[in-house]
Formats: sequence, structure tokens, C-alpha cells
Amino acid sequence: MLQLYSYSLSSAAYRVRIALNLKALPHETVPIHLRKEGGQQLQAAYRAVNPAALVPALVDGDLTLSQSLAIIEYLEDTHPQPALLPADPAGRARVRALALSIACDIHPLNNLRVLKYLKNELGVQDAARDDWYRHWVMLGLDAFEAELARSPVQGAFCHGDTPTLADICLVPQLANARRVDCDLSGLVRILRIEAACQALPAFAKAAPALQSDAG
Amino acid sequence: MLQLYSYSLSSAAYRVRIALNLKALPHETVPIHLRKEGGQQLQAAYRAVNPAALVPALVDGDLTLSQSLAIIEYLEDTHPQPALLPADPAGRARVRALALSIACDIHPLNNLRVLKYLKNELGVQDAARDDWYRHWVMLGLDAFEAELARSPVQGAFCHGDTPTLADICLVPQLANARRVDCDLSGLVRILRIEAACQALPAFAKAAPALQSDAG
Repeated sequence: MLQLYSYSLSSAAYRVRIALNLKALPHETVPIHLRKEGGQQLQAAYRAVNPAALVPALVDGDLTLSQSLAIIEYLEDTHPQPALLPADPAGRARVRALALSIACDIHPLNNLRVLKYLKNELGVQDAARDDWYRHWVMLGLDAFEAELARSPVQGAFCHGDTPTLADICLVPQLANARRVDCDLSGLVRILRIEAACQALPAFAKAAPALQSDAG
Repeated sequence: MLQLYSYSLSSAAYRVRIALNLKALPHETVPIHLRKEGGQQLQAAYRAVNPAALVPALVDGDLTLSQSLAIIEYLEDTHPQPALLPADPAGRARVRALALSIACDIHPLNNLRVLKYLKNELGVQDAARDDWYRHWVMLGLDAFEAELARSPVQGAFCHGDTPTLADICLVPQLANARRVDCDLSGLVRILRIEAACQALPAFAKAAPALQSDAG
């Protein structure tokens, strides 16, 4: 059975949880608590799984995979249905670009280890650190909303009427945004899509609060 | 003809330049100077191409693509030979994870706009900003080296004996690392792979110093 190394509040792990649910793939979850014991991801036991000491990781037999988007592409390669990427190259490029706009342009800047560096190494106060967090989230989500607005591709989700990798990245990023009180009220397309996602059990069941290590 | 919006010193644009060269795809380059006129990428003319105001962007007919990895996957979908991803799902996952470990875990933290925020909004001095830069580069490259060391997959490049998306991300990141004097001498596998890449005209011709807007 697939094993997912996950942390309830990791938005990268949250993406993989959604993908596993959408594809209805049985798996067991191994919690790696990023805030306990100085960070369980930094300990030798987990470094043996992933030398980069980041969650998530997915174990499939004798194969260990890291990087949430690479894991989801692997699930797409090995379990193509339901598809999380469109069939046409232009659609695939658009969905991947939306996903990467979150995975590369927003999330790395609000990662826990980065926030810790700001505080511990650069002496940034909590208020300025939260401003930093909100700055990158809103810059990225505003661009995401602009892309949704200008695209000829419409639908209930980011790209048509079925959820894709773009939605899988968007929903966890919105959970992060709310944790630092970002004002999302102007992002009307994004909020409409989020509601459509949350109506699906695959998204709802992947929420941080419902994971075994939450609390 | 394909049009690449590029900046010589953008490592994300550098990735796409390498991919276009490896696939021998004719294209014209439109320079977007990130340090001139307050940043040409922030101006309305470029925002009409890419609302996120980031380079690179690739125009293919009436299609405009953003995000370097999405662009390269598009080139792979539309021009499969020579392949930049392995044929097997496990290999594809490994190459994508290596690429994403640079694109998500290193590069976003040394992006120009982030360095500017550290200086202008957080008052971080130049020396501390360079330490920040080196910290994330070395943390990421050390993990990359560890992954190369432990993998059963060997060869002249990151994954076997032909260049892949992983090499395409690695070489530009090393150029960035040298710009802030990172000590790369311990990364023996990475340096060997870099030399193999630089021996190929597709990589060599994509170097920042050889672009029309360099200098």
C-alpha cells in the first residue's frame, strides 16, 4: 500500500492528500510533525526517507518519491483516471503554470523554515514577518485571479468542469492565506472555485483539521 | 516562430533557453530587462503578456505560456524528441523531483524581487542578504548532491547519459550560486554533471553572458 509522509499543516502534503483522494488510491499516512521535537523532518529517521528533510514523501513499494508536484505527476502517470491534467498540450501547460505559480511563487516564501530564518537569523519581528507572508500570498493570488479572468477557458474549476492540479494547489494555499488573515474578498473567481472544490469529499477530507496529527 | 521573453540573468529563462536549444527549436528572443526602467517586467506591455510580471514567457502562435517548468513540459508534449524526461514513471518522478527541488526550494528564495523586499522592506543589510542567498542555495544543493549519491541511477548527467529537466534546472542554479560566491567545491557529483552539460552547445549557448541583453 502507498505510504504518505505528511503533516496536517503542510500545504504541500495537503496537495498530495487531495490527489490521492481524487484518484481513490488507498494509502496509509505517516505523520511527520514539523513543530515537535525540533522538527521530526530533520531527524535521521526521516532524512533516510527524504534527504531534503521536507514533507511530503510518498513510498510506493521500493520507490520513494519527493516533491508534491512530482508525486502528483507520478500518480497521474501510473493511475491516469480520473485525469488531473487536461489531454491537450495547451491545457496541460496552463494547468501546470497555475499550479507552479503557487508552488514556486507563493508557497516557498511562506514555508515554515523560511519564516523561522526571518525571525531567528534576520531578527524580523512577528508583525513584519506576517506582512511578508501576506505580501507574497496576495501578489501571487492576485496574478492567479488575473489569469482566471483573462482566460477563454472557463468552468466550475480552474480549468473546465473537473478538478485539476491547479485546484489541488490552490485550495491548500488559501488555507495558508487565512492562517495569516489575508483579505481574500476581492478574489471572486478563486473563492467560487474554492467552494466548488470544498463541495467534493476528496478535497474536504484532505483538510488539515481532519488529519490524525491535527490539533 | 516561437518567441521567448527572456532576461539574460534570469535562471528561470535560462532553463527554457537550454530546453529550446536541446530540442533545436527555432525561436526569437525578446529581452525583458529586470533591472532597467524600474523593471521592464512590471510595465503594462509585459503584463499584457504575463500578468504575474515574471520572466520567462513563451509565445507559440496565439498561445502564451508562463512558468519555466510548464513551458518545458509543453515543449516535451509538442516536440517529444530528444526527450527531456525518462520514459518510465519512476524515472520521470525522480527527474521532476530534482528539477522541483531547485525550482521550488532554492530559486524562489534568491529571486530578485525577494532580495529587493529583504533590503527595502525589512532593512536587511547586503552581507546578511548574501548569507540568506547562500544559505538556501547550499541547503538545496547539498540535498541535491545527497540524492545523486544515494540513487541507483547513475550516468554522465543527473539521470543517465542524456540531459533531462533536472540538468536544465541545475546548471542555471549553479550560475546563480557563483554570483554570490557559494563554495561549491564539495559538490563533486554536481560539478561533474555540470561539466558534462557545459560540453554541450545547447547548454553553453544558453549562458547569460552570451545573450543579446547581457552586460
